[in-house]
Formats: sequence, C-alpha cells, structure tokens
Amino acid sequence: MGNANIRGDYVDNYLRSIKTKLEHFADTDFPSEDVEILMGNAQLRTYLPDEYFLRAGETNRKVGFVAGGLFRLFYTDWEGKDYTKNFKSDGQFVGALASLLLNVPSKLSIQALENSTAVCFDYDDILRIAEHSLSWQRLLRKITDVEYLEKEQRESDLLFYDAKERYINFKKAYPDWDNKVQLRHIASYLGMTPETLSRIRKNLCD
Amino acid sequence: MGNANIRGDYVDNYLRSIKTKLEHFADTDFPSEDVEILMGNAQLRTYLPDEYFLRAGETNRKVGFVAGGLFRLFYTDWEGKDYTKNFKSDGQFVGALASLLLNVPSKLSIQALENSTAVCFDYDDILRIAEHSLSWQRLLRKITDVEYLEKEQRESDLLFYDAKERYINFKKAYPDWDNKVQLRHIASYLGMTPETLSRIRKNLCD
Repeated sequence: MGNANIRGDYVDNYLRSIKTKLEHFADTDFPSEDVEILMGNAQLRTYLPDEYFLRAGETNRKVGFVAGGLFRLFYTDWEGKDYTKNFKSDGQFVGALASLLLNVPSKLSIQALENSTAVCFDYDDILRIAEHSLSWQRLLRKITDVEYLEKEQRESDLLFYDAKERYINFKKAYPDWDNKVQLRHIASYLGMTPETLSRIRKNLCD
Repeated sequence: MGNANIRGDYVDNYLRSIKTKLEHFADTDFPSEDVEILMGNAQLRTYLPDEYFLRAGETNRKVGFVAGGLFRLFYTDWEGKDYTKNFKSDGQFVGALASLLLNVPSKLSIQALENSTAVCFDYDDILRIAEHSLSWQRLLRKITDVEYLEKEQRESDLLFYDAKERYINFKKAYPDWDNKVQLRHIASYLGMTPETLSRIRKNLCD
C-alpha cells in the first residue's frame, strides 16, 4: 500500500470521525457539503503539556473539539494567582466563549495539561455557514448551552454542596483526572484550598 | 370607537411591539406567520411585588420577555439564606435557563421586585418552530449567549475588581436600581456583605 492510499484513508477516516463527533455533540445531521467547506480550513492541532491553546489578552477566533488529552481554562489575577474554571476532554468543545461571541480579547487562558489534540475550526467560517444552515445554528447553540450549564452547575454546587461532597462528585464524574491534574488546579476548580483538598483525600483514604 | 376596535388596536400594537423587541434581541427578522403561531399561546402576565415568576423545585417551561418592572433570580440554600444571581429588566429574557434546557426542576427562584410585566411564551412552542426556522434558532441561541456572558462577566468581575469597583460599575450600568432593590440583594449579587456595601456607599457619599 503506497503513501497516497494511506493518506487518503487517513483523511477520509478523520473527516468521518469528526463529522460524527460534531453531529453527536449538536444532536443533528450535517449536510456533507457543509462539513467539506468547514474542513477546508480545519486543522488537527497537537499540544504539548503546558502549551497554550489561547493566552489571556488574545482574541479567540478558533474553536476546538478535543480529540484527545485534557485542557484547563483559567483566569490569572493581577497578582499572578490563577483560578481554574473548567477542564475540557475528549469530545468537548474548547475555546474562550466570551471572546468568540464578542470578538474581544479573552480574560481566560487555555492550556493543555498533557499531550492533547484538538480539531480546530475557524469560528467565523461556522458563523458564515450558520447564516444559512439550521444544523450549524444548532451546533453554535449547543456550544453555548453546554458552556452555560457547566457554569451554572459549578455555581450551584458551590452553594449546595460542602467541600467533601464536591470532591466526591468530581471523582465520580472524572475518575481518572485525579492522576492527571495537579491537586492545586482541582482544589481551585472545586473552590477550596489545596490544604482542604489534601485533608479530604486523606480522610477518604483512611 | 367601540370596544372591539380598542381591543383590536391594543392587540395589534402589542404584537408589533413584541415582534420588534424579539427581533432586536435576536438581531434577526421573524416571518410574521411564525410570530402569529407563537402569539397564539403567548400571555401578557403581570406580577405584583414579591410575586414569583418561578419557584425553585418547579420545572420552567415558559420564557418571559420583560416588558416592564424588575425581576430577581436567586438560590436559597439549605438554611434558607438566599443568594442573588441576576436581575432582569425591560427587554431582557427572564427564565431559569438550566431548567428550560434540561427540562428538570429549577434550582433558581425568580421573583418580581416591583410591579412587573412579562410577555410569556411556551418554550416548547419555540423549540418546535425552531426545528424549521433559522430565525428562532437564532433567538434560542441569543438567549443562551446573553445568559452565558452575564455569568462569565460576574465571575470575572469577582476576581478582577474589588468590592468598591464592583459597586461603582453596578451603579454605572443600572443607575436607578439602587432605589428599587433592597441593599442586601445588591450586596449578595456583588459578592459582598450588606455591611461592606453600606460602608462603600457611605464613603462614596462623603
């Protein structure tokens, strides 16, 4: 089998898998011609651990769908302290939504926590296609719906669950992240100090 | 002029004004026939001060567009303490978005703070129409976009501005709410104690 064939199969499989993922995400079918237009400018990007998908201050015009690995979204305050707001893994949208929606510099930074891969689309391409396509409107809507729900869930968890319950829920939802993510990032995401998280983990192990 | 005529004018004006408000909100045109379908089940609802638009525990299936007055969105924790998360005034969408999106009981309550009016639509009507209409997909998307941006703005304000700056920004954005809204609700919304807010207001007046 020659290189050309291998490359053809690879691109075909890649297109098919992305189309399926996007359709699953948006709970809709995409006409093949739309997907082909979009894929024309799409990039399969790989990120090394600690590499930035986006830095605060940059205006975000690309949206990623995570194909593997893990990304962290965080704010850095005036004193350099960072606050983890979300994690994104396989099949999830990754991007700084406020920056995308308003076309302004992002306050959030996004960084890979391990070797990660994302299929990146030009957001303005999607906007243009969505002007005439219900399916892509649904995709755009779904992106914001999910981001909104994650934010509200985190907000209400901070009110209705104590630190230990929040950690137990986190472990249930993401059983393997405990080993991948630095404890200080998990603590920050769960709205507690690293010391509190260490104490909770120790007590759960005893 | 008879009652029938007055009624006819009233309904016409009301339809026109709502259509214009929705189009302004979603930055799109709605075909008249869509608006008429939707208006068939729409209700112009008035709320007395403290009357609930929605109580936590109820599943929200109606979306309102505020035509006058002011609504407060809040959580109540296990001990009965409440946390103000948002206010909604003229031209804004009002509803418990997570409950609408997931069709589950709401964690948020929504209450009128003064005599208020909202045009209420059946959310499932909008979903049905949106299956075939770009304009209504855009409206649904815009609702979530705005809710998301408000949440992210509040989240980042809490990190990047101190209490005094948050209050000054609030006063600039909503100059007349200071007199309409109880200070404890403003304090809660701005993430500070009522005592801190009183001190800040006093210092600004001196």
